[in-house]
Amino acid sequence: MNFGFLLFPDLEELDLVGPWEIINVWRKYSNGPSCLTVSERKGEIVCAKGLKLIADYTFEDCPVLDYLLIPGGQGRKTEMHNQKLLDFVKQQSNNCRQIASVCTGAFILHSAGLLRNKQATTHWSALEELRALNDVRVDERRFVRTENVWTAAGVSAGIDMALAIIAEEAGEETAGEVRLYAEYYPDNKRYGTAHTNEKAPAYVK
Amino acid sequence: MNFGFLLFPDLEELDLVGPWEIINVWRKYSNGPSCLTVSERKGEIVCAKGLKLIADYTFEDCPVLDYLLIPGGQGRKTEMHNQKLLDFVKQQSNNCRQIASVCTGAFILHSAGLLRNKQATTHWSALEELRALNDVRVDERRFVRTENVWTAAGVSAGIDMALAIIAEEAGEETAGEVRLYAEYYPDNKRYGTAHTNEKAPAYVK
Repeated sequence: MNFGFLLFPDLEELDLVGPWEIINVWRKYSNGPSCLTVSERKGEIVCAKGLKLIADYTFEDCPVLDYLLIPGGQGRKTEMHNQKLLDFVKQQSNNCRQIASVCTGAFILHSAGLLRNKQATTHWSALEELRALNDVRVDERRFVRTENVWTAAGVSAGIDMALAIIAEEAGEETAGEVRLYAEYYPDNKRYGTAHTNEKAPAYVK
Repeated sequence: MNFGFLLFPDLEELDLVGPWEIINVWRKYSNGPSCLTVSERKGEIVCAKGLKLIADYTFEDCPVLDYLLIPGGQGRKTEMHNQKLLDFVKQQSNNCRQIASVCTGAFILHSAGLLRNKQATTHWSALEELRALNDVRVDERRFVRTENVWTAAGVSAGIDMALAIIAEEAGEETAGEVRLYAEYYPDNKRYGTAHTNEKAPAYVK
């Protein structure tokens, strides 16, 4: 089994690397998939905050994927109209056991035709835009699943979604072992008042 | 102001990218530092789980840093004996307002002489090794600070430490705004029984 992570310019770094870490650790504790990165072109990908990545594969030489994750970030505004990328996502999705987006990566899933009439979420600042598409049932939770299509809320929410995918595919005990390895026991200190912003998603309130 | 992130082969991905994301967002809400990556050599750095990165600078052309973060990962076992890397860390630390490690990056800080007689922590699986150094006061918390030297526990703990550094440098309101942007409101579901492992750190129990 393999798990592909889609790279594109201006992706949000933690959208990608939160799940990347968690899914890779799965392999350590049970028969987890082998992880790879894939992008449209060879060469350096500069992320939204400036981190520079190199993908393992291009769309042309990427193997058939059993799982696919799509991060968000400013770059999604371009990529949601990139037909070559959407065709890649659509084609791979036919074989995927599970397909997932983090943050505004949901808009790429939607453009690829994979969110219509499904429950989904995105970064809190883009919930209205997702609602305005009129064919997605927006659900303001940390992550949302309809059949084999998973969407996480903003940025760090991909970590929680990745653990839930492992629990689904390999059981709760394996998800717990991954959680211990990654020492994912956050302190939950909220700091100041920003979380009381009226635009904060329902699950935070 | 600038904030350097040290890259080396076999670093653990989330150790680096958790704080990278959080510190970069700081700049969005207040006068946060500009972030950069630095490695010993030019070219591709393959991380512990296979992600491929390219650093912005080498030790030779890296500017003077105001902050420095050192990730952990299997690669630290080599780098804690790499005199060129230790010299770079030591020299930059003279100018740093704050210097930080995540996970087993603490052993690089120690080899650079920056943890002696200080309180510190590391990944739970390396706590005994840190204790055996005999000159570090090991404190099993999510992150630990002594003066301007910060150490985080394993992998994801770097996110919590980065928020605390922002709260220290820019105030709690800014840290809260960064937290909202990164939607860092984890669901805390523990899954299974792994967290009851006797080797789990004190703060988890």
